Amino acid sequence: MEQLNRRKLFDVFKPNTNALIYLRGGSVTHRYDTDFEYSFRQESNFLYLTGVQEPDFHVIFDLKDRTWHLVIPKRDAKFAVWMGHVHKPDYYKERFKPDSVLYDEQLELVLSKRKPDLVYCLNVAQAKSLERYKVEVETETLSEALSYCRSIKTPEELDKMRFASDVAGRAHIAAMKRAQTATSEYQVKAAYEFVTSEAGLLHQPYSGIFASGANSAILHYVENNRSFDRNTHFLIDAGAEYQGYAADITRSFPVNGRYSGIYADFYDIVLQALTETTSGARPGVKMEDLHLHACRVILDGLKRIGMLKGNISDMMEVNLFALFFPHGLGHFLGLDTHDVGGYLKGVEPIDRPGLRFLRARRTLEKGMVITIEPGLYIIPALIEPAFTDPVYKSFLQEDALRKQLGFGGIRIEDNLVITENGTDNLTTVPKKRAEIEALLG
Amino acid sequence: MEQLNRRKLFDVFKPNTNALIYLRGGSVTHRYDTDFEYSFRQESNFLYLTGVQEPDFHVIFDLKDRTWHLVIPKRDAKFAVWMGHVHKPDYYKERFKPDSVLYDEQLELVLSKRKPDLVYCLNVAQAKSLERYKVEVETETLSEALSYCRSIKTPEELDKMRFASDVAGRAHIAAMKRAQTATSEYQVKAAYEFVTSEAGLLHQPYSGIFASGANSAILHYVENNRSFDRNTHFLIDAGAEYQGYAADITRSFPVNGRYSGIYADFYDIVLQALTETTSGARPGVKMEDLHLHACRVILDGLKRIGMLKGNISDMMEVNLFALFFPHGLGHFLGLDTHDVGGYLKGVEPIDRPGLRFLRARRTLEKGMVITIEPGLYIIPALIEPAFTDPVYKSFLQEDALRKQLGFGGIRIEDNLVITENGTDNLTTVPKKRAEIEALLG
Repeated sequence: MEQLNRRKLFDVFKPNTNALIYLRGGSVTHRYDTDFEYSFRQESNFLYLTGVQEPDFHVIFDLKDRTWHLVIPKRDAKFAVWMGHVHKPDYYKERFKPDSVLYDEQLELVLSKRKPDLVYCLNVAQAKSLERYKVEVETETLSEALSYCRSIKTPEELDKMRFASDVAGRAHIAAMKRAQTATSEYQVKAAYEFVTSEAGLLHQPYSGIFASGANSAILHYVENNRSFDRNTHFLIDAGAEYQGYAADITRSFPVNGRYSGIYADFYDIVLQALTETTSGARPGVKMEDLHLHACRVILDGLKRIGMLKGNISDMMEVNLFALFFPHGLGHFLGLDTHDVGGYLKGVEPIDRPGLRFLRARRTLEKGMVITIEPGLYIIPALIEPAFTDPVYKSFLQEDALRKQLGFGGIRIEDNLVITENGTDNLTTVPKKRAEIEALLG
Repeated sequence: MEQLNRRKLFDVFKPNTNALIYLRGGSVTHRYDTDFEYSFRQESNFLYLTGVQEPDFHVIFDLKDRTWHLVIPKRDAKFAVWMGHVHKPDYYKERFKPDSVLYDEQLELVLSKRKPDLVYCLNVAQAKSLERYKVEVETETLSEALSYCRSIKTPEELDKMRFASDVAGRAHIAAMKRAQTATSEYQVKAAYEFVTSEAGLLHQPYSGIFASGANSAILHYVENNRSFDRNTHFLIDAGAEYQGYAADITRSFPVNGRYSGIYADFYDIVLQALTETTSGARPGVKMEDLHLHACRVILDGLKRIGMLKGNISDMMEVNLFALFFPHGLGHFLGLDTHDVGGYLKGVEPIDRPGLRFLRARRTLEKGMVITIEPGLYIIPALIEPAFTDPVYKSFLQEDALRKQLGFGGIRIEDNLVITENGTDNLTTVPKKRAEIEALLG
């Protein structure tokens, strides 16, 4: 599949120019000043174009003849003892099918013979690797080009994402069930990660959130170490990564398996926001409009259940939604969890509460994969000051909201492929109240 | 317990000097150019002296009056929404009991009022944080002083290490049992990490090795993704981290639960090396002498079972042991898996095969914690060239060794506290053949 990815990249550039593209793959990194190694995971662009999963590789694409050249590190005998192998160039030639394989020490010779007018690099840091070779570099175009290619997924990429979603789905179900008997958040996390590890998925695409009760309103909750009891609710935002491709799924549920009272009311509002924005997603639609639609559903719902009063359009005008839904509706998903391509060059985030954090401001196209993840939170740090805010206070039913200050939050998140006429949902975990109740019943 | 650690550090420095010690704690780091966050784990020296587990803190120790001052980051309202809290200085004063708490933006004022003659920093990178304050810095003494303090563990530290060892021990047993039914190495890893995660230990102290068959001879095997069958053997080198403190344990076992043939022979040699060096470890003994003793046991054993011929002293002289046991016998263990303190200032590694990788060249003292981890491997990259090496070949029973070229390796590793007269073994996982057979029977 990397062959198709390379073809897409070549097609972005003007043909037959005397220019090269240079990319450096990832290396093993260490924690602080120690020899603690972070588990190696290839840099996403490098993985996308080469498929190579080993550290310390480089690659060159020649725009003149559309050839590509894998630059491999020269390993010594000590490497064989500690890492088990030192493969010869032929091995990589056979396995990845580049037009040639060269050792990194040959790079200088190749560049000096080839004499490119320009070398496109991913960024300034990567360009530094070429500093000593005295070639002209450019660090803007390549990352833009790769974002463009990567934002439309091929069928092979979608297959991998579907697999990641399926494993993450099984893990969510196992974790939800575990929450019914667990006493600490980390036990739920352990149950989740057991499923993904047992399936051979060695990396998590991001630090999962396993939040009980009020912790569910902490948007980036990573402690995952609090005790909880049967009467609270739970939020799990966790994914899986298969061959580099991410799933990113959130589910919210009552620990005792029965939605009731205010939790059921809030849940229905969030689910409605998810359902309506999912129905609205299709080619030609802007992410920011879906976001604003979700905001409206949430304000409508809060008014309906007596938490807000007044005119919805007035509320929209003053961005009241951002008190309850302060993050973006969704983002691109792929080799990175917050995948590239969310903003075209020159497009800035909308400077408006809530929308400021929207990670994708694109008009949707067939083949994009996005998350849709509306949420509804009672965050004391936002709500308490609003009670006395001249702009907000007239909309708030203070007594009703005050009762919920320790509530926490609800988020529901699916992963969607944009298709010809709508979306294809990669996420198979139940999200309807009745389904989850049946699962946990 | 950090109070005692701080006292130890103050005691290393000359009292009443007009000098400060400055340390910067860890920050959240990202993978490549993305927003993927590595799970935060405090820098070990900072954790040792402060107990603080949050990112972006600094600390100052005043050698004039032996006071200490916690420097906290100023967080904005957005932080509260995403991370759930913004604690005031009083919170940290109460919790960690420093002599004062200041915001990082106050650091300049404090330094300019205090006018130290010298500020001790951990290294050049940390000293850079002080560059703009125009103070005299020194970057040699502090890391040496901390290594000195950290290499002798307090009873409280030993309690934590014992707990980490106990959890790792349970995980080893679960993983050994899982290996009997698993078909892939990652399933064994999943079973292992489930136990440590379920116990609430959120970090692994290092990337565990879960190696079947010949992979067990790869000293730094991290793929952990191969299939294996009932007739092979397995090596697990994996630990646990409790409140920063590491366990680091290795066990080797036949998947079918029955030691037999050459595997049993090799196992007995390694176990003997472990037992004898453990008996020899006590205050006053040098790590390098224990290493050489293990080498001798291994060579003796290989000769006894017909893999080597000739005089053991001659073999020792030409470092023949390094063909079969190419890594160090052990290392210091503590807040880091390869803990600080293994080499005093000015001491260099011994430039001799095998010993070159010995990570500790200290005379043992009461309160040190070390690993002892002899191994015996058939590494083709080392053995094959030796068959024609003029120095080695006369010692090798080539036919017998050739039959074992795909064997892999065996390592057994315990964690030991040096006591008044010997050692206290923190590692409780069975290692005798009969015990493991009973466990897997």
